[in-house]
Amino acid sequence: MDTVRLGVIGLGNMGTGHCRGLQAGKIPRAEVTAICDINAKAMEPYEGVKKYADSAELIRSGEVDAVLIATPHYDHTTIGIDALEQGLHVLTEKPISVHKADCERLIAAHKNKDQVFGVMFQMRTDPSFKKLKEVIDRGELGTIQRTNWIITTWFRSEAYYASGGWRATWRGEGGGVLLNQSPHTLDLFQWICGMPSKVYAKCDLGRHHDIEVEDDVHALFEYPNGARGVFVTGTGEAPGTNRLEIVGDRGQIVLEHGKIHFARTETPVPEYSKTTRNSFGTPGTWSIDIPVPPGPGGGSHEEVTKRFVDAILDGTPLVAGAEEGIHSVELANAMLYSAFTGETVDIPLDGAVYEAKLMELIAASRFEKKVIEAEVDFEASRM
Amino acid sequence: MDTVRLGVIGLGNMGTGHCRGLQAGKIPRAEVTAICDINAKAMEPYEGVKKYADSAELIRSGEVDAVLIATPHYDHTTIGIDALEQGLHVLTEKPISVHKADCERLIAAHKNKDQVFGVMFQMRTDPSFKKLKEVIDRGELGTIQRTNWIITTWFRSEAYYASGGWRATWRGEGGGVLLNQSPHTLDLFQWICGMPSKVYAKCDLGRHHDIEVEDDVHALFEYPNGARGVFVTGTGEAPGTNRLEIVGDRGQIVLEHGKIHFARTETPVPEYSKTTRNSFGTPGTWSIDIPVPPGPGGGSHEEVTKRFVDAILDGTPLVAGAEEGIHSVELANAMLYSAFTGETVDIPLDGAVYEAKLMELIAASRFEKKVIEAEVDFEASRM
Repeated sequence: MDTVRLGVIGLGNMGTGHCRGLQAGKIPRAEVTAICDINAKAMEPYEGVKKYADSAELIRSGEVDAVLIATPHYDHTTIGIDALEQGLHVLTEKPISVHKADCERLIAAHKNKDQVFGVMFQMRTDPSFKKLKEVIDRGELGTIQRTNWIITTWFRSEAYYASGGWRATWRGEGGGVLLNQSPHTLDLFQWICGMPSKVYAKCDLGRHHDIEVEDDVHALFEYPNGARGVFVTGTGEAPGTNRLEIVGDRGQIVLEHGKIHFARTETPVPEYSKTTRNSFGTPGTWSIDIPVPPGPGGGSHEEVTKRFVDAILDGTPLVAGAEEGIHSVELANAMLYSAFTGETVDIPLDGAVYEAKLMELIAASRFEKKVIEAEVDFEASRM
Repeated sequence: MDTVRLGVIGLGNMGTGHCRGLQAGKIPRAEVTAICDINAKAMEPYEGVKKYADSAELIRSGEVDAVLIATPHYDHTTIGIDALEQGLHVLTEKPISVHKADCERLIAAHKNKDQVFGVMFQMRTDPSFKKLKEVIDRGELGTIQRTNWIITTWFRSEAYYASGGWRATWRGEGGGVLLNQSPHTLDLFQWICGMPSKVYAKCDLGRHHDIEVEDDVHALFEYPNGARGVFVTGTGEAPGTNRLEIVGDRGQIVLEHGKIHFARTETPVPEYSKTTRNSFGTPGTWSIDIPVPPGPGGGSHEEVTKRFVDAILDGTPLVAGAEEGIHSVELANAMLYSAFTGETVDIPLDGAVYEAKLMELIAASRFEKKVIEAEVDFEASRM
């Protein structure tokens, strides 16, 4: 096989972007041969491709080697399982599923490891996050003692929420900011700092918008080594903050505005603490600006898709295997579950218990969504 | 009366500093006429003053019009009540007491409002905090929606904790970083942003040091209007962070490194959210550096003492009346109580319940403190 024949399923904001990129030839050795959307109008602009209203037909058409799934979240699971079972390679948008039990079902369907199964975590290709992970993994900061990520740069208007009936509902998205805007952040957080072992959160439902799901989250994490973390996110403020701070035995690293600053102690802090005779002394500290290599801020969808195609044709590594997508979902679920119960939640989370809670929320939902036609600034939407 | 005759009670780090400042003539119309410490050696360097081993004798000596109390925390209450009952004006170091019930007892002893009763909240004279409060009070930021204060610039070595047997014990201080290092921060936090109505916290006891009290705190606040806040502090990291972020309807203000930055939206965010038709639009934002007037960073003990003297002689306002000192204590108590119970704690806190819990901790303490001679870098200690 020289070329991967791709089917794009779901032509909303994301799928449209992926499709345009592919058709513009941005991904070598890949061509869009088929597209699918329940809305025929969304498929009108495309020529020279087979068009399907039903993903099952596209998957069984013989027209594609692989599918890129960009539907609303719940369908990532069902369509993903179908495509994997039909022997196709799969690249899915984030989140891989809405809740942990669905993640496990989807991952379980990936039996044949010759099939490539990736997730669109393009933020992992952002040079500042790549660099930060490299520095942490190399042990420059020593053992991590504290983390803090405030990411409130997700302002969304009422018009955004009104632009789709599935948006910001338990039935349609299975959550709010944690399931829609935060999967990248939660993935990067665990990719760089590891998974916490305990989560406590306050999640406010519809605090800033007329929606039934959370649009404001304040969470406390506890890591296996006793380190603690803070995670704050929401879609209700502007311009918002995006600041990641990681503290370790050798000082602290802050990533903000695309810049990485390392305040590095000359001596490991615990060692200094135990050996100095000075009651009010502090270890000497170097102020270091860590250069961020050039590259696309926010990462590159094209790189993820390109490496998916390379993985199929050459067996090279993905940006992120879909299996890794379970972590961000588990974190999101754990925060919501903590908020509902008022308790600290252990990781691993019981996926069945959370699924039951979510089904209960869906069954109890009486929320009537006002849907209106909204303007979309396309470039701003490609997260 | 032309001059206030001051007695300084307690000649540890703080009392020594105050005494030297007074004797150097830094406070017009005030003179130290008497000092008191249980350790005679601490009083040796001073000449021309009466010396007492017992505060009750100093208070009844007829040698002073006012006392400045700089003893270990618990004694602020007992000595403060005694001095007030004997008709003296009182300026006490922070915290005014160790727990809320003691604060209430101390405040109740201030029956005669002609007696001036102040607390050493010198950080309120820091020009950056004064400016920040002025901007918030003027409504520039609109309604506060979120607060976040990370203050981990309180690194303390094992030598610090070993330098006094009373330090960092339930019996000696009634807590750790929340009672010793944080009273100023908690006072400023509530002075500028108001008191929360609910507090949830994780407090780690002796995580970074060989002590029985908390040296690491992660707390979530909820304000009466539904706004949320984060408070992070500890004495275990270096160089540490000191960053206060306040988000409101008109954007966000960040105070860090003595600089105030205001990202101000052109339209109030809730109004923009409700009226725009653009799904992914955000309100226009101005980047504003708010100049901080010149003045002593960290504030001025001398200004607090000077205004205490002015209040006595001229009836002018204090930097902070001691009554206001209850808020930072209540916050500290609420965080510890939440950590002990694992529950969200309502403000107002039940002072009697907290006092009972603290007495229980004291009774159960089996902690043996190693006390060693430490070097003190005096300038660094004057917080």
